[in-house]
Amino acid sequence: MERTIYDDDHEAFRSSVKEFLDREVVPNVEEHAEAHALPRDFWLGAGKQGFLGLEIPEEFGGAEAGDYRFNAVLTEEMAKVNMALASCVGIHADIVAPYLVHLTNDEQRKRWLPGYAAGEILGAIGMTEPSVGSDLANLKTTAVRDGDDWVINGSKTFITNGFSADLVVVAARTAPEKKAKGISLFGVDTTKEGFSLGRKLDKVGQPESDTAELAFTNVRVSNDDLIGPLDTGFISMMQFLPQERLNCAIANVAHAKQILAETVQYAHDRKAFGQSIGNFQWNKFLLAEQVTKIEVTEAWLDQCVLAHTKGKLTATDAAKAKYWTSQVQNEVIDHCVQVHGGYGYMNEYRVARAWRDARVTKIWAGSNEIMKELIGRDLGF
Amino acid sequence: MERTIYDDDHEAFRSSVKEFLDREVVPNVEEHAEAHALPRDFWLGAGKQGFLGLEIPEEFGGAEAGDYRFNAVLTEEMAKVNMALASCVGIHADIVAPYLVHLTNDEQRKRWLPGYAAGEILGAIGMTEPSVGSDLANLKTTAVRDGDDWVINGSKTFITNGFSADLVVVAARTAPEKKAKGISLFGVDTTKEGFSLGRKLDKVGQPESDTAELAFTNVRVSNDDLIGPLDTGFISMMQFLPQERLNCAIANVAHAKQILAETVQYAHDRKAFGQSIGNFQWNKFLLAEQVTKIEVTEAWLDQCVLAHTKGKLTATDAAKAKYWTSQVQNEVIDHCVQVHGGYGYMNEYRVARAWRDARVTKIWAGSNEIMKELIGRDLGF
Amino acid sequence: MERTIYDDDHEAFRSSVKEFLDREVVPNVEEHAEAHALPRDFWLGAGKQGFLGLEIPEEFGGAEAGDYRFNAVLTEEMAKVNMALASCVGIHADIVAPYLVHLTNDEQRKRWLPGYAAGEILGAIGMTEPSVGSDLANLKTTAVRDGDDWVINGSKTFITNGFSADLVVVAARTAPEKKAKGISLFGVDTTKEGFSLGRKLDKVGQPESDTAELAFTNVRVSNDDLIGPLDTGFISMMQFLPQERLNCAIANVAHAKQILAETVQYAHDRKAFGQSIGNFQWNKFLLAEQVTKIEVTEAWLDQCVLAHTKGKLTATDAAKAKYWTSQVQNEVIDHCVQVHGGYGYMNEYRVARAWRDARVTKIWAGSNEIMKELIGRDLGF
Amino acid sequence: MERTIYDDDHEAFRSSVKEFLDREVVPNVEEHAEAHALPRDFWLGAGKQGFLGLEIPEEFGGAEAGDYRFNAVLTEEMAKVNMALASCVGIHADIVAPYLVHLTNDEQRKRWLPGYAAGEILGAIGMTEPSVGSDLANLKTTAVRDGDDWVINGSKTFITNGFSADLVVVAARTAPEKKAKGISLFGVDTTKEGFSLGRKLDKVGQPESDTAELAFTNVRVSNDDLIGPLDTGFISMMQFLPQERLNCAIANVAHAKQILAETVQYAHDRKAFGQSIGNFQWNKFLLAEQVTKIEVTEAWLDQCVLAHTKGKLTATDAAKAKYWTSQVQNEVIDHCVQVHGGYGYMNEYRVARAWRDARVTKIWAGSNEIMKELIGRDLGF
Repeated sequence: MERTIYDDDHEAFRSSVKEFLDREVVPNVEEHAEAHALPRDFWLGAGKQGFLGLEIPEEFGGAEAGDYRFNAVLTEEMAKVNMALASCVGIHADIVAPYLVHLTNDEQRKRWLPGYAAGEILGAIGMTEPSVGSDLANLKTTAVRDGDDWVINGSKTFITNGFSADLVVVAARTAPEKKAKGISLFGVDTTKEGFSLGRKLDKVGQPESDTAELAFTNVRVSNDDLIGPLDTGFISMMQFLPQERLNCAIANVAHAKQILAETVQYAHDRKAFGQSIGNFQWNKFLLAEQVTKIEVTEAWLDQCVLAHTKGKLTATDAAKAKYWTSQVQNEVIDHCVQVHGGYGYMNEYRVARAWRDARVTKIWAGSNEIMKELIGRDLGF
Repeated sequence: MERTIYDDDHEAFRSSVKEFLDREVVPNVEEHAEAHALPRDFWLGAGKQGFLGLEIPEEFGGAEAGDYRFNAVLTEEMAKVNMALASCVGIHADIVAPYLVHLTNDEQRKRWLPGYAAGEILGAIGMTEPSVGSDLANLKTTAVRDGDDWVINGSKTFITNGFSADLVVVAARTAPEKKAKGISLFGVDTTKEGFSLGRKLDKVGQPESDTAELAFTNVRVSNDDLIGPLDTGFISMMQFLPQERLNCAIANVAHAKQILAETVQYAHDRKAFGQSIGNFQWNKFLLAEQVTKIEVTEAWLDQCVLAHTKGKLTATDAAKAKYWTSQVQNEVIDHCVQVHGGYGYMNEYRVARAWRDARVTKIWAGSNEIMKELIGRDLGF
Repeated sequence: MERTIYDDDHEAFRSSVKEFLDREVVPNVEEHAEAHALPRDFWLGAGKQGFLGLEIPEEFGGAEAGDYRFNAVLTEEMAKVNMALASCVGIHADIVAPYLVHLTNDEQRKRWLPGYAAGEILGAIGMTEPSVGSDLANLKTTAVRDGDDWVINGSKTFITNGFSADLVVVAARTAPEKKAKGISLFGVDTTKEGFSLGRKLDKVGQPESDTAELAFTNVRVSNDDLIGPLDTGFISMMQFLPQERLNCAIANVAHAKQILAETVQYAHDRKAFGQSIGNFQWNKFLLAEQVTKIEVTEAWLDQCVLAHTKGKLTATDAAKAKYWTSQVQNEVIDHCVQVHGGYGYMNEYRVARAWRDARVTKIWAGSNEIMKELIGRDLGF
Repeated sequence: MERTIYDDDHEAFRSSVKEFLDREVVPNVEEHAEAHALPRDFWLGAGKQGFLGLEIPEEFGGAEAGDYRFNAVLTEEMAKVNMALASCVGIHADIVAPYLVHLTNDEQRKRWLPGYAAGEILGAIGMTEPSVGSDLANLKTTAVRDGDDWVINGSKTFITNGFSADLVVVAARTAPEKKAKGISLFGVDTTKEGFSLGRKLDKVGQPESDTAELAFTNVRVSNDDLIGPLDTGFISMMQFLPQERLNCAIANVAHAKQILAETVQYAHDRKAFGQSIGNFQWNKFLLAEQVTKIEVTEAWLDQCVLAHTKGKLTATDAAKAKYWTSQVQNEVIDHCVQVHGGYGYMNEYRVARAWRDARVTKIWAGSNEIMKELIGRDLGF
């Protein structure tokens, strides 16, 4: 079915994104994978194109589209290249940016946003910790008041962009006894003393992204680095999680749809027993099922994007989007691997990488179990 | 997510349908099940309300909405009562009506349409035959020219409304050697000599509908009963099948959504081991999954309805709609049965009947295997 | 793979069972379905053949095989006819019999067992209650001491053989405050005053069995009717549940295997588009999957039967058997329906009835959710 | 359920294997992964222990157990370490060895077997080719007679042990026009001129194994290197494939069972929201399902092993074993990853590697689609 949510402006933007990626990213994917990170040149280039500032007001160097469909187009095109690309840019431009735009004071905006839109200041967000996983309200990192400063201690893990980031939005406990109501956010400059990087994590897939452990040992930040009112960090995270989950969902579907299209092509090209392997009824029906599943999911997700554009996407719907799309993505790509036979198990094939890339989407941004918990609560259970 | 395709006119129409069904159908469902048919009074009442003439021009007594969303609303509300209701009315008003409106000449329209819109002439369509199933191009019923008349011989099976129908659109072979290109359609008055009814079929579910075997033994019809040009019946059926499949899809989703809502309520009300059974995490998550699946499917299907309203729904998309929704419907309702425990196996519970009602949707209107064949062909295989 | 657990004696017994069923049951299935019960003649005939006394000592008229494989053969052959047959006989001969043999005193054995083995006294067991379902420890039926008697009040539901039974083993609360440790079992003669039958329940499938609600209104039984020591009923039920669940599992597999074999035959016989429908690759692969699933399950279940024959089957393994086989049975038969197309939805086809019959196996004898709870506990959770 | 097919001798052998692996392999897995191969020292050590000669007569230095259960124990213990280990040793000792023992003449046995049993001559088998995949009868590699010699040209891919092998059993076309009946087998010494190695293939998982492309450019072998009668290679391959598939099946189940046991342990150890994550009902039930699935599969597979030990395992049953176990293995391990949350996506965790390792088992040794084709044919389709 034809998609209906995008108009000419969105498609023109899509072309410019695509043209940039074809030129700057596609030829360098191997390099990114070996470096386990996107190079700074990529970020500066993307910044110059205006891709990093869709959430950022024009006065601070952004494009402030005010239309989430542009974000969606950007995410789609990146996910078609690979999931890590969508993830790294998503974290910076779609997920961290709202914290820096909506929760900050004017001084902070001036300090951070221009560089952020330009790709000079690369962002990350430090929520997850080794011992607590999805149980955010229980996080252990502390920020203790010391005069005008805060002293941060603790560790974070699975932090996308963690290795390369210049600025990390860190969730830390500022009131030990108050659980969810005792968490605050800080913008931490990664050149601060006491901030150290653990390993780049060796992941099953997405080798092009840097994912790191961060350690904070008496990292001293000023009260000017506090983002949003004291002790309201948990609420802020809850408030911005839906956009994060929608961003993930968009990447999931665009990624799977692209790999499926490549697989349909492969099923035409590859011959066995005297015919295209897609002509075997089993493959034909399986591909028909996958195509249907993707189109159903995409049409619904488009409506989610439209709802979010109007400010109407609920947290529950975002949870549904994250859960459902990640499930579909993994199912579809697993079948795509099978259609490729032995080649589907070789890393030089895009489908093999895609299969490895996709597995984490059922886990990150709140595991699918957490999503089902949220949806179940919305049913009154 | 809020649905966006319906406006106030559609919702007003929904209320009138609902009011009618609550009054005329809901209290009589047991009676319909015992009679294995809807009584003529129902049809006359529905005709009076204008529910049977959405496809029929005003000059012939119809409402000719020209907006398929009204058909969709009608189907949804009936499916919420039970599948058989949606099926019987769907066959008459949504599936057979287009043949009588778009393929007929003026004399035929005058002869048939006013009674058809009024519920005085009840319609059915005779495609499927005992020996050929989904392989329509191979049907065996013949119509042989004899002077100005045609003489029909053959048999049809699984004919919804077959027992009660006054007018059956019959597909018959008029050119034996020409396969798909030798099939024509006839409007057969069921009082004709030689037309006889086999049994009302004893189905797994949908006891409220009459489903019959029809036998044609030298049934003589006039050339004036030929519907559309000679030998073009197969093309006509292909042309109207998408609307039939979309109609099925709409019923599938509305039915499953309704049963799921009732099950969520049941999971609140029913206690075990000291709590609502929906509070058990396993049930909670399963219900969350089902709710998600239904909402995803509904949002996509709404876009199909919109596309069809604009005349843009392709045959492939209709095949996707029939296949996917029937699969989802059956999965969802099977889980609903399980949530009900032993009561889910008792026919006095709506969920038990719904489970039996739903099974056929993966088979009828072209089996899901045929749907996957069509989708696969569209991929070039 | 060839089965290895049965020797010539078992196969000879199988032949005699089969011969009896072919003669006495198969021609009368319609009659049983209409009566919603097996006639007493059936029971007397089965008793005469020695099929009802496999658990019963020879001195009381039984065969006391002491080898559960004979029970398994009996169950298999009955399930191949239909599930209701396996269920009714299973309740009497495989599930209730152990209570009457192992928990009774000599006077009780003399009173009950000869008639029980002969089919003159038909048994049922009253555990499940309308309000408590799987939560047996919470049952509400009470037995209050009054002199030498006990006065029973309460109701039971979903009782197989409930309508026809002469003797019901009833679980009742004898110590209100002691939960699981305050339940006792009584052998209640159904001619007692105050015992009344509710409706024969109208089930989704298994019309050949009688399933009833039982009401106890001041039913006075003597202390001689107490089965086993006072307040130990819950432990007894837990002790005998594994054999009940194994019995269910055996029926599930034999039933599905039989229907699958018939479906493979149908897929040979039924032609479409010029070939046997089983030759279409999709059907061929699906049938290959189902055959594999059944054989895997059967080979494992045979080992369970062997373990139980040696007295080594754990409660956890019995839970696995009940859960897994019911899941497999339902999956397999659902595919069988689909292979039959429209005929799979017609009650005159065995596959349609089988589909309806099978659904309850995921619910009864402890729902599959309860089974997973038990298996999970065995993992230490 | 307790396993019953192994006696004390098998368990003693298991202990010796385990002891060897714990000492020689477990500490060196990282090294194997980096080298993409097992070192020669491993092979020599295994040879010294007698693990490589289970199929080889004692007169040629083997152990000739004559009881496939020893092979099964060996495979199980290796798969518990990792799939690549089971694969490399399986190819050498379980899959190639029968060709060298049963199809060879005495001169060949003397030439090859002692070194083979000792681990001095490492074996591989060259069936699969880049362009033909599972369609073995169509292979393109040719062997052309030239005097007393044969000249081999062609290429092979996905060859386990391909890089390290000293002796490759190569399937080549000796009669171009005779399809399956024109294929012969040759024992090719890899030091021959014209034999060259392509890359070690970069696989999704199993980094510890070497998998290579082999190229043959006018490789001249003597007629003494012909294995078995001319033009009968296809039949020989068909004859030995069941043992290959059973070997794969044994590894699949042992691997998944081990990872599942580790995951159950993890679910005890890992806490979230104040309890072991295995105590959450969703996880508890999912783990209960996986444990059941593995035990069912293992009990059935044990019966397959027993049948093969008696020479009674059919090709169809071997196909069922390969298909079913690979499906189960992948399902189980995917759930295990999910239970591990983010850590399940980190290569340092065994579960993450296991997930990558397992994916190929649905593809290799004849894809599962080929398996279903074989099973379907056995049903007469």
